[in-house]
Amino acid sequence: MSEAVQTAVIGVTGYAGAELARLLLHHPRLKNAPPVFAGRVDERDVERGGIPLAEIHHALVDSRGRGNLRQHPFSWELMTDLDVKVMFLATPHEQSRAWVPEALARGIRVIDLSGAWRLNEAVNRAIYAFEDEGSAQASEVQAEAVYGMPELHRGEIAGARLVANPGCYATSIILAVKPLVAAGLIDVQYGIIADAKSGVSGAGKAPTAKTHFMYAADNLSAYGVFTHRHTGELLEQIGIGAESMTFTPHLLPIPRGILSTIYLRFKDAQNRSAVIHAYRSFFANSPMVRLHEHGLPQIQHVVRTNYADIGFQLSPDGTRAVIVSCLDNLLKGASSQAVQNMNVMLGWDESEGLE
Amino acid sequence: MSEAVQTAVIGVTGYAGAELARLLLHHPRLKNAPPVFAGRVDERDVERGGIPLAEIHHALVDSRGRGNLRQHPFSWELMTDLDVKVMFLATPHEQSRAWVPEALARGIRVIDLSGAWRLNEAVNRAIYAFEDEGSAQASEVQAEAVYGMPELHRGEIAGARLVANPGCYATSIILAVKPLVAAGLIDVQYGIIADAKSGVSGAGKAPTAKTHFMYAADNLSAYGVFTHRHTGELLEQIGIGAESMTFTPHLLPIPRGILSTIYLRFKDAQNRSAVIHAYRSFFANSPMVRLHEHGLPQIQHVVRTNYADIGFQLSPDGTRAVIVSCLDNLLKGASSQAVQNMNVMLGWDESEGLE
Amino acid sequence: MSEAVQTAVIGVTGYAGAELARLLLHHPRLKNAPPVFAGRVDERDVERGGIPLAEIHHALVDSRGRGNLRQHPFSWELMTDLDVKVMFLATPHEQSRAWVPEALARGIRVIDLSGAWRLNEAVNRAIYAFEDEGSAQASEVQAEAVYGMPELHRGEIAGARLVANPGCYATSIILAVKPLVAAGLIDVQYGIIADAKSGVSGAGKAPTAKTHFMYAADNLSAYGVFTHRHTGELLEQIGIGAESMTFTPHLLPIPRGILSTIYLRFKDAQNRSAVIHAYRSFFANSPMVRLHEHGLPQIQHVVRTNYADIGFQLSPDGTRAVIVSCLDNLLKGASSQAVQNMNVMLGWDESEGLE
Amino acid sequence: MSEAVQTAVIGVTGYAGAELARLLLHHPRLKNAPPVFAGRVDERDVERGGIPLAEIHHALVDSRGRGNLRQHPFSWELMTDLDVKVMFLATPHEQSRAWVPEALARGIRVIDLSGAWRLNEAVNRAIYAFEDEGSAQASEVQAEAVYGMPELHRGEIAGARLVANPGCYATSIILAVKPLVAAGLIDVQYGIIADAKSGVSGAGKAPTAKTHFMYAADNLSAYGVFTHRHTGELLEQIGIGAESMTFTPHLLPIPRGILSTIYLRFKDAQNRSAVIHAYRSFFANSPMVRLHEHGLPQIQHVVRTNYADIGFQLSPDGTRAVIVSCLDNLLKGASSQAVQNMNVMLGWDESEGLE
Repeated sequence: MSEAVQTAVIGVTGYAGAELARLLLHHPRLKNAPPVFAGRVDERDVERGGIPLAEIHHALVDSRGRGNLRQHPFSWELMTDLDVKVMFLATPHEQSRAWVPEALARGIRVIDLSGAWRLNEAVNRAIYAFEDEGSAQASEVQAEAVYGMPELHRGEIAGARLVANPGCYATSIILAVKPLVAAGLIDVQYGIIADAKSGVSGAGKAPTAKTHFMYAADNLSAYGVFTHRHTGELLEQIGIGAESMTFTPHLLPIPRGILSTIYLRFKDAQNRSAVIHAYRSFFANSPMVRLHEHGLPQIQHVVRTNYADIGFQLSPDGTRAVIVSCLDNLLKGASSQAVQNMNVMLGWDESEGLE
Repeated sequence: MSEAVQTAVIGVTGYAGAELARLLLHHPRLKNAPPVFAGRVDERDVERGGIPLAEIHHALVDSRGRGNLRQHPFSWELMTDLDVKVMFLATPHEQSRAWVPEALARGIRVIDLSGAWRLNEAVNRAIYAFEDEGSAQASEVQAEAVYGMPELHRGEIAGARLVANPGCYATSIILAVKPLVAAGLIDVQYGIIADAKSGVSGAGKAPTAKTHFMYAADNLSAYGVFTHRHTGELLEQIGIGAESMTFTPHLLPIPRGILSTIYLRFKDAQNRSAVIHAYRSFFANSPMVRLHEHGLPQIQHVVRTNYADIGFQLSPDGTRAVIVSCLDNLLKGASSQAVQNMNVMLGWDESEGLE
Repeated sequence: MSEAVQTAVIGVTGYAGAELARLLLHHPRLKNAPPVFAGRVDERDVERGGIPLAEIHHALVDSRGRGNLRQHPFSWELMTDLDVKVMFLATPHEQSRAWVPEALARGIRVIDLSGAWRLNEAVNRAIYAFEDEGSAQASEVQAEAVYGMPELHRGEIAGARLVANPGCYATSIILAVKPLVAAGLIDVQYGIIADAKSGVSGAGKAPTAKTHFMYAADNLSAYGVFTHRHTGELLEQIGIGAESMTFTPHLLPIPRGILSTIYLRFKDAQNRSAVIHAYRSFFANSPMVRLHEHGLPQIQHVVRTNYADIGFQLSPDGTRAVIVSCLDNLLKGASSQAVQNMNVMLGWDESEGLE
Repeated sequence: MSEAVQTAVIGVTGYAGAELARLLLHHPRLKNAPPVFAGRVDERDVERGGIPLAEIHHALVDSRGRGNLRQHPFSWELMTDLDVKVMFLATPHEQSRAWVPEALARGIRVIDLSGAWRLNEAVNRAIYAFEDEGSAQASEVQAEAVYGMPELHRGEIAGARLVANPGCYATSIILAVKPLVAAGLIDVQYGIIADAKSGVSGAGKAPTAKTHFMYAADNLSAYGVFTHRHTGELLEQIGIGAESMTFTPHLLPIPRGILSTIYLRFKDAQNRSAVIHAYRSFFANSPMVRLHEHGLPQIQHVVRTNYADIGFQLSPDGTRAVIVSCLDNLLKGASSQAVQNMNVMLGWDESEGLE
């Protein structure tokens, strides 16, 4: 533990930012170099040296005031002065589009939690309507972005300068489907149906009509049917066409957690052990995925853990499967996957600070 | 309003029983003949003339004690003495199997809310393992049972002596799918996938590990994958084989309401208005179904209403549909559908007392 | 039922407005004269004749589109043309201050659900900082305002031109305490402590940091300690000084309902029947209050009912009481109390349309 | 960290047991001597070497099966063979009464999470109706039991053989009140009112009518008014008579967390800084209590933390205070307080493994 890698978190005020701060503050490899927090800070708070994190996230402070760090006003000078090596962007898409080129130019490696750099194909990016879409710079940056799911791209992540951290829904579905596609078991022609349900934190911290307690509580609603922007990630990472994926997200009346119920058909009838074998092979070196050999995972199994849990049930004739995939949208669906990516980028144990 | 039909509710202590009592007590046609409540009553309560309903369901009493009716000890003599014409059974399956023959023999028409008489095919009934399965009497009774979904069987219900009130999940799925099957639009070969989610009241009033607040709250879990006993109703009423239906129920952390998300493929690409037309035609005389021509229904739209709400979204190429079907599992999924059946059986307006 | 009183609801878009609309649409005395809804309507909606209520509150429409009324653009001409006799204001405080004088001048009787006219003493009104405070007109209007709690002011309400509908917290506390004060039982010197808890609908429909699901869910928080503006109503209606009342509201993680736990000391030790007698006497003609002679009410007993439920427990020595008072904040705490006031004003049965 | 203290947890299957297991498994001082889990184990499970904890509490296992420990069949021989030094009893009251004498006789120090040994006065113990009440052995054991709240009894706990871990409600109230009583500020004659609210985990894991989701959700209910058995702890530890304490617990519709709102009167008017000073002095060496100098704590501040948070508001004239005290009922209200006691007993840092 001799190294002292300086990290920075930009945008610590959201739900994923808070979890990221917590994980980094307790990360054994960062004991001697706690992350610096930077973002928008108004005049009054600049004067007192930044915004105490404890005012933003009460849970980040202990009784003796340790952990009572501050969000500093962001500046590139600050990043350079502190010799920041890895920068986490928990910022809106547009801001990530704007900042990443500058960071790379300054030699800072970036883990971007937004959707800015996840998509390789322009047709899939279109839904974001990025202002710089098509510019030479944007294309160049995109070309070197690596999709930050270690279970799929461990090798590339290790050497990447820019890691695009996956979407929460996309993580839960790709992890469940990719191993079976890779093993050649699935009838892709038939199509894959992903019925996904997420807690309200997935909708962000801004108060809106849909995040109002009176809307979300005692309710369930489907939204973004055939139009949700995580669809592009699903197609590109699973490697299928739009006609083979039907993805329906729902808003659950709970704070956090995603459960995706996935329906697919096999090319040939399978038995339980063959399917378990496909998963076990694919995840042989993946400490952050737990396979349920019996029974099905549920949201309480994964909330406040860094794991994705996967279980399944076959139809009596072995031709169809129902897969249930669960994770905490703020952790394996965002922050802990970002830390997992950092571990891989820095050559540390992939689950360091996550178990 | 000259007639005075005497009704009886057997088993008023559960959640559906309470809603049924409420609906019947406010039914305009039953003003002069409130229902009689009967069931198991212990010694001590027999002495005071039955159990006051207000002790079971506080909401059934007003400040002046009106509505403070009693659950009387059940006896066939009581039914005969009061000249009960229609008997609602909100009792366990086995009890319904045992009592219905006697009721019919005494000339009492029955609306049975249990699963005892819903299934025509022995292979589907097998899951219930009824003790009298295969007996001549049971077969005879089953032969005249009508599946109590007025939107499908209005005519038969009108003359039926025994109406088997549908399951809650089954109601939400059949109403969404049957009109499109009937119109010949669906590629049944491809299969229908129903991802259904229900509030905890669907699991009944008995305290169990799964109905414990700590299990259900902040959670979502799938259960009964490929094995739920409502599957039989789906197959028989929609008219498809087991290989064409994948049905996955989930337990939602809310008190009541069902939302089913249904995935299907059309034989030929459809546009929105063709699908709306198919629904409108099928439901032309069905007051208890509301079609969303725009947008999708959600659970809050239907909870504490007697309606089933249906909406849908087509894939861009018109080959696939995602249908969302919502209802209150205790009302259109149980009690208010029972009242709707009573209305049809007695020749009253189908929505009498339900709007 | 020969009369046809035209009513109007101004501001139907909030939670209390929706419940008020529902109650009036089903009121037996208003069958032939449904209320007119008016409020702010933008250009585009003016063109189509107002905003369909079903777009605001889905539950207000049935499958055949009945009940699909509209919110019209408000104008005094509309009120006059329709010969509106009773106007419900479910509007912000300031708007009620501004509009009530005009309504009275036009001979329209007003039931105001805001806090604009509830308080007799300037010191208590100060917290609202009304712009017209102290003006001759405001003082004149205030002088004739009657506090709209029929259980206390039935006679005055009957003849009132302006009824100030009480606050939700205030209703639950005053109903529990006033009968015992009136009977001379309470040691007022000792003081009364009201620990009150309310569901989130009490915080209004505007999305804010405090109404965000992530803030309210799985939480409980006290607020407005020693400063909540319902305190003035408590003091004036119970008839005690500020030093005798400690009132602490809390935000409950539920949609609706208030439970107030009230602590007080008797001048002399009491037994249970004496306290029951005091309540029974006070509420002899009050159909909307239910006294629990045994046990204590809880929020589920009253949600979606128009009742206030009261129960209590005495200390073993009879010197202290813990009173539990529950109601639905949107009904007896707002809309149904407004309808109750209308009933009294028009000489109808006080519980008409409320049981 | 050379010592290797062997600990044992008896009764790991409940909610507090699970948290205790988690805390001990991650305790830095127990790295080389993980706790042994023992309890009731049936025949079939004995054969496979005990019940895997992962089957009881899914969260206690990681993807590589580490942490997959077992609950072994309890026997005194096992305790002796393993040389258990500290035994945590997360068992029913009666079992703790039966086992503690044997443990002490065998030289094992005990931290008992039940209510078996918390009360010094027979009148307060009466409510438990212990079978061995009054026996010489029970009296002897009781005489050496220390009430396990380090903030009050740190010195005695250090040397104790038997520590009676406090009740959850009692902890939240005593920590808030004792410092002000100790400072001589409170008018005890006037009395202290504690209005406490707890999440459902406080009611235990057994499925009952009150822990059913349909009872607890969307509800709030008071219970045990003037009769709750934590009252005895309050009286003995605060040092007041029964006539000076009114304690009302309520059941909150949330999984975990307690918020107590406490009302009291000062002998003389106080200002904010004097009260802060009293708390600061009392808690000078207490790392597990966090004082809010501004604002009030709420349940989300403490859930899943090991802290008790305290804040307060004074009446404008400084004669009255409303104190808000929050904690997680399974942690500072049970398990983490037990670990805190272990730390004190073994001479370790009081907050070791808790921050």
